[in-house]
Amino acid sequence: MTSVITLLTDYGLADGYVAACHGVIVGISPETRIIDVCHLVPAGDVRRAAAILAQTIPHLPPGIHIAAVNPVGGSRRAVAVEAGEHVFLGPDNGVLSWAVGASGGARAARELANEELFRKPVSPTFHGRDVFAPVAARLARGQAMADLGPEVPLDRLVSLPAPTSLVHEDAVEGEVLSVDGHGNTQLSISAGDLATLGVHPGSTLVVWLGRRHVSVPFRETFAAVPPGELVAFTDSAGLVALAVNSGDASQRLALPPGAHVRLSPAP
Amino acid sequence: MTSVITLLTDYGLADGYVAACHGVIVGISPETRIIDVCHLVPAGDVRRAAAILAQTIPHLPPGIHIAAVNPVGGSRRAVAVEAGEHVFLGPDNGVLSWAVGASGGARAARELANEELFRKPVSPTFHGRDVFAPVAARLARGQAMADLGPEVPLDRLVSLPAPTSLVHEDAVEGEVLSVDGHGNTQLSISAGDLATLGVHPGSTLVVWLGRRHVSVPFRETFAAVPPGELVAFTDSAGLVALAVNSGDASQRLALPPGAHVRLSPAP
Amino acid sequence: MTSVITLLTDYGLADGYVAACHGVIVGISPETRIIDVCHLVPAGDVRRAAAILAQTIPHLPPGIHIAAVNPVGGSRRAVAVEAGEHVFLGPDNGVLSWAVGASGGARAARELANEELFRKPVSPTFHGRDVFAPVAARLARGQAMADLGPEVPLDRLVSLPAPTSLVHEDAVEGEVLSVDGHGNTQLSISAGDLATLGVHPGSTLVVWLGRRHVSVPFRETFAAVPPGELVAFTDSAGLVALAVNSGDASQRLALPPGAHVRLSPAP
Repeated sequence: MTSVITLLTDYGLADGYVAACHGVIVGISPETRIIDVCHLVPAGDVRRAAAILAQTIPHLPPGIHIAAVNPVGGSRRAVAVEAGEHVFLGPDNGVLSWAVGASGGARAARELANEELFRKPVSPTFHGRDVFAPVAARLARGQAMADLGPEVPLDRLVSLPAPTSLVHEDAVEGEVLSVDGHGNTQLSISAGDLATLGVHPGSTLVVWLGRRHVSVPFRETFAAVPPGELVAFTDSAGLVALAVNSGDASQRLALPPGAHVRLSPAP
Repeated sequence: MTSVITLLTDYGLADGYVAACHGVIVGISPETRIIDVCHLVPAGDVRRAAAILAQTIPHLPPGIHIAAVNPVGGSRRAVAVEAGEHVFLGPDNGVLSWAVGASGGARAARELANEELFRKPVSPTFHGRDVFAPVAARLARGQAMADLGPEVPLDRLVSLPAPTSLVHEDAVEGEVLSVDGHGNTQLSISAGDLATLGVHPGSTLVVWLGRRHVSVPFRETFAAVPPGELVAFTDSAGLVALAVNSGDASQRLALPPGAHVRLSPAP
Repeated sequence: MTSVITLLTDYGLADGYVAACHGVIVGISPETRIIDVCHLVPAGDVRRAAAILAQTIPHLPPGIHIAAVNPVGGSRRAVAVEAGEHVFLGPDNGVLSWAVGASGGARAARELANEELFRKPVSPTFHGRDVFAPVAARLARGQAMADLGPEVPLDRLVSLPAPTSLVHEDAVEGEVLSVDGHGNTQLSISAGDLATLGVHPGSTLVVWLGRRHVSVPFRETFAAVPPGELVAFTDSAGLVALAVNSGDASQRLALPPGAHVRLSPAP
């Protein structure tokens, strides 16, 4: 069985940085298959990276998944976390936490402290190439987790605050979880949450954004409304998303990730 | 012989959507080679996707080619079309038609109706991941075309109107077929069409755009004119293209895809 | 051992051009592994392509490396250059020269003159697909270098002027080598050059740009300063880079590639 390594970074595609990671992996483990999850995470946007990884992981094969995204202001220790059939590698800043949760929770974790497994010299600004890529490639070739470094107690791993959703009798509260490349605004509210309010595709929602509110049709797909109009639909991750057909809902509604949102059935 | 699957979508590269398709394919068929044709098709631009696929297909190895681009306003039934040594998968909206034509025409077609081959639950907004990727991977592993669903009569497949070119005694008429990422404006007029008018590299063309007209040198490459100047040349698909050296011809000439163009030799 | 081919172009990602190159390679050599170094080199920017290749090559496995970037204004003969464990393919315009140097210097070179190895007809505007890709794939399958065409004397290969750095008693002079996708401005001055002046992370630099000058903290990483502030650090290639944390240093300082820079310790 060929091993699989996936890569998620904020390196962009305008340089040779991603290729250097590929090259290091292939140099150590020529048979490993590499899948690029995304390299256009906004620089240092740990929350966005965590959301992309958590929503992609159910569709990725068992493997070793690198998420090399650090917040502006410095780096954290590097860790390897086992969950489900996966091993996740990244800085211990929460970027792995939602994907680990979506894979059944952490079973064991190690700090990446064994410098013999790194590419030397380690650039302080390029752990993707010099730490995560070589360690992933060595794991792919059979290196034991125990060789990576000391065990990390699972309750010491940094977690991002889980996005909240609160179901009331006549409304659901949640937040903007993620904004995708098209400006679709994904909420922390699932289609199931809405169903408990009796809201199904075909009905109309009232979306409360602080003191503003706006009526939005809830449909099967964003394409069910004319171009330029707002719509809510269940996205490919099973979550409620606000979109503008052929437009940018995040910009239209001025809704950044983390913003509080309340949904209720139209009267 | 390793199987090949290619992917053409309008998913963009800022999310994990393309990776989810890769993951589904690799999970089912670990040995399949994947080639990304393009993921930056403008959202819903079926005509642009059709042009990219038709012009790339002569250079792709025999394989299974996914074109997951739907026009704004809804989706069509999903089909598999055999042509030449290829199988094309996509919505039956015409996106496959030019590539099928460039591969010798459709030999057989099936509707993708066998839900046992899909990834469940099928997201209504993500057929690339839940329908096309798993069906392609199963075809790559030897699943029979007959298992996909009912046969589709070839004359019921949706075709995009073929781009026209009309050769007169003293002019050729055609249209803007496609505008590439550099703003190069590809016409539905071939170098052969021009040759019948006696126009060869080195001569000057008059380009008629409605009531406007402009004189343009016809050269071997766009680099034969100084930066900033208009030029016509035979592009890598054998078609006449209008370009601005180091600039954007589509913007300069205000020529969108589909616009009518007439070329005549300069007097 | 699987062969490796890498690709560096200015084709962009909005078309099927890169996929056509992949397709040609896979069609000839189905087992070859392809690594995309970068396809977003600004059109015709030979110097930027040369810098990306030279800084990525130490991390790439032994293989065949294509750099298909031509300056605006025409193409040069195509060459293959052997250096270290690599073969480099590209136009003889200097784009290969820094990577060849970084790989130990040219050992032998051939002109790509044997048209039997090309894809016919050769498009004058797409040598990546019709010349470099098929020749690389044939080399990967064992074609002898001697079959490519006549030997090129090593002293006739075009070289880009090596970026200069001059260490004085109280200052180092150099130039802007490259600007990456984040606007980080990489100088031709190494961390070692600075060390000879007694400048180490933690000290402050004076950066002279013609008659302007500005004081800049020299730190381990760009993240050591608050967002929006200028910083100098040793980048992942071992060179001094000027950056703005979460910003664009090249724009802030109006420093294009090639600009002269002088660094001295703050008094």
